[in-house]
Amino acid sequence: MAYGKPSRFVTAVRTPMTMIGHMDLHGDPNGLDAWTPLGALTGSITPSALHYVSSHGNGPPDIDPREHRLLINGMVERPLVFTMDELMRLPAVSRIHYIECVANAPYPNGKTLEEMHGMIGCSEWTGVPLSLLLDEVGVRGGANWLVAEGAEATKISTSLPMGKAMDDVLVAYGQNGEPVRPHQGYPLRLVVPGFQGKYHVKWLRRIQVVDRPYMTYWERHHYMKNRRRTGAATTPLGHVNGPDGDYFLEQGPKSVITAPSGEQRLPGRGYYTIRGLAWSGSGAVGRVEVSTDGGRSWSDADIEAPARRIALTCFTFPWTWNGGEAVLQSRCTDDKGQVQPTAAAHTRFWGTSGAPHNNSIQPWRVTNDGTVLNAL
Amino acid sequence: MAYGKPSRFVTAVRTPMTMIGHMDLHGDPNGLDAWTPLGALTGSITPSALHYVSSHGNGPPDIDPREHRLLINGMVERPLVFTMDELMRLPAVSRIHYIECVANAPYPNGKTLEEMHGMIGCSEWTGVPLSLLLDEVGVRGGANWLVAEGAEATKISTSLPMGKAMDDVLVAYGQNGEPVRPHQGYPLRLVVPGFQGKYHVKWLRRIQVVDRPYMTYWERHHYMKNRRRTGAATTPLGHVNGPDGDYFLEQGPKSVITAPSGEQRLPGRGYYTIRGLAWSGSGAVGRVEVSTDGGRSWSDADIEAPARRIALTCFTFPWTWNGGEAVLQSRCTDDKGQVQPTAAAHTRFWGTSGAPHNNSIQPWRVTNDGTVLNAL
Repeated sequence: MAYGKPSRFVTAVRTPMTMIGHMDLHGDPNGLDAWTPLGALTGSITPSALHYVSSHGNGPPDIDPREHRLLINGMVERPLVFTMDELMRLPAVSRIHYIECVANAPYPNGKTLEEMHGMIGCSEWTGVPLSLLLDEVGVRGGANWLVAEGAEATKISTSLPMGKAMDDVLVAYGQNGEPVRPHQGYPLRLVVPGFQGKYHVKWLRRIQVVDRPYMTYWERHHYMKNRRRTGAATTPLGHVNGPDGDYFLEQGPKSVITAPSGEQRLPGRGYYTIRGLAWSGSGAVGRVEVSTDGGRSWSDADIEAPARRIALTCFTFPWTWNGGEAVLQSRCTDDKGQVQPTAAAHTRFWGTSGAPHNNSIQPWRVTNDGTVLNAL
Repeated sequence: MAYGKPSRFVTAVRTPMTMIGHMDLHGDPNGLDAWTPLGALTGSITPSALHYVSSHGNGPPDIDPREHRLLINGMVERPLVFTMDELMRLPAVSRIHYIECVANAPYPNGKTLEEMHGMIGCSEWTGVPLSLLLDEVGVRGGANWLVAEGAEATKISTSLPMGKAMDDVLVAYGQNGEPVRPHQGYPLRLVVPGFQGKYHVKWLRRIQVVDRPYMTYWERHHYMKNRRRTGAATTPLGHVNGPDGDYFLEQGPKSVITAPSGEQRLPGRGYYTIRGLAWSGSGAVGRVEVSTDGGRSWSDADIEAPARRIALTCFTFPWTWNGGEAVLQSRCTDDKGQVQPTAAAHTRFWGTSGAPHNNSIQPWRVTNDGTVLNAL
């Protein structure tokens, strides 16, 4: 009663990838990664207890909020240090946004919904607009970027353009009504709506206002397209900073059918509601189409209205399975008119070495016995 | 990691009222009631683990979903029994709605936010529209009401007009992404947006389509205005059914300042963000005004946009405390133009015996030393 639990008949959990014979996402022996058990969930809000985790290092730091500080310095008029109490006295907003790891992607050898699409979660985030804090410190002319750094042992840091920082970024202390969970950055997380997961710096302790992207160690070694290229110089921050490499910021429109999905099994022919999730880093979902014939024909799915900006959006599509083979897939178009690509189109654009983020269509093949398989 | 927990520095819990010397809401020795720890939460989504509980009887039944059934019978063409699997194959929607207990009310002896306003929670509910199930069974002519019944020992049942049932009522199996929690009705709960809490029947097992309100035992004895009046007759359902008593359905516009609030203490003069929640059973919040001078002047608060229909809506208001006495209060106007009444106006209308639901304005008095008290 004090802190409620699910029914004993509800068994969805997060399983660290390394425990199920799956390589850690980052090839990091100390990494801690786990998927959201997407197929066991309903709606668009991800329970905080089951939100995906992607960490470099041995789990979350154990931070006492009374001792935690956020420093904002660099190219500013008045460097400031905020306590948690001070941050929580400032105006705050609460917004529902998804966060998705750059590694979330359909691929030919993938089997389940979770292993290809489980590195995503959607929460109501509550916090102070970063623009308010930046106005408070006074950003100086020529300061076009910032570097945000976490308090964990590995000090993950990431470069963020000032335009985004002044737009809709939050310094979040609340997640789904409670303080942000330790695995999600307690007590403070940067929320950068629609940008790759790595920008949403956890255990946020410092924001340095700078003149250009810093291509920090973690960015270069894990999150940039040309991360093997050399010619870098060391910056005052101690991070690698070179002329090469590309940043990948905003995520494109994406969707996936969550039921039926990989390794599920249809109990028999008849009526099913195809369910799925759609999202876009650019705005709201405008349209979701579903094909049940391998992409030959498409029909509009029902989208849960109103579709929220940069948030998971549920869709459903009525389908009667006649017992034969079928290939099911969904295609998202966002409110900017961007359309989710096929895997083939995605490869044509990015090449076979793979993109930093893959938002291509996930086809599922339903076989004669009702087994559902990845059709890539 | 398997099922994440809050940081050890986060201590918000639900405390059963009887454990803190507070009478059970229903004067029921077996009742189980606990407030949402509203003052410790952020945003509009209530964590399922901390959602308020109001139950008659010894806690939630331990229901195996494989054995649970929903029966819809009465004045219908085809009475049907649904398994959970069958329900989950049907089209579903996910909607964010608050649920508030009829007992939630400001009163002169109340001290804290929680004891006067903590019987409210807001969740994303996922489930099948009841209208779809009613279309499936075929409602017969003259069937203007239904009686919904739960599976708990006390078999709580409640009468609901057909107009509402066909509008936006959900047979919900999902709450904030997971299966509905046991205290909230696992595996199935009726969600009746904007209606008093008692209509949201937990552990839903039966919907009987009927011709008129049934004034069931629990309705008459706990939830009707004139519950002491007699002259009742027994109905085929075994419930009390008389000519007297009034139903109270939709809740009016309401709001409360959650910080600063009762028994909190301001650490010193200076800038504060007044925070609060607003909602209406009729629709979306249209406007929230805040007064810091005991109701002499009012100014518009910032509402979290877009305000969702029949959902908790956050508001903030900038305030500088000069160290003197102040009375803070908020007033909600919904998108139908309905305005939250003062306590005096509410009493003028309902009399001193109290209304079945009290949506009146909550004033908080800030004293010279920063202590915050109920100003009623």
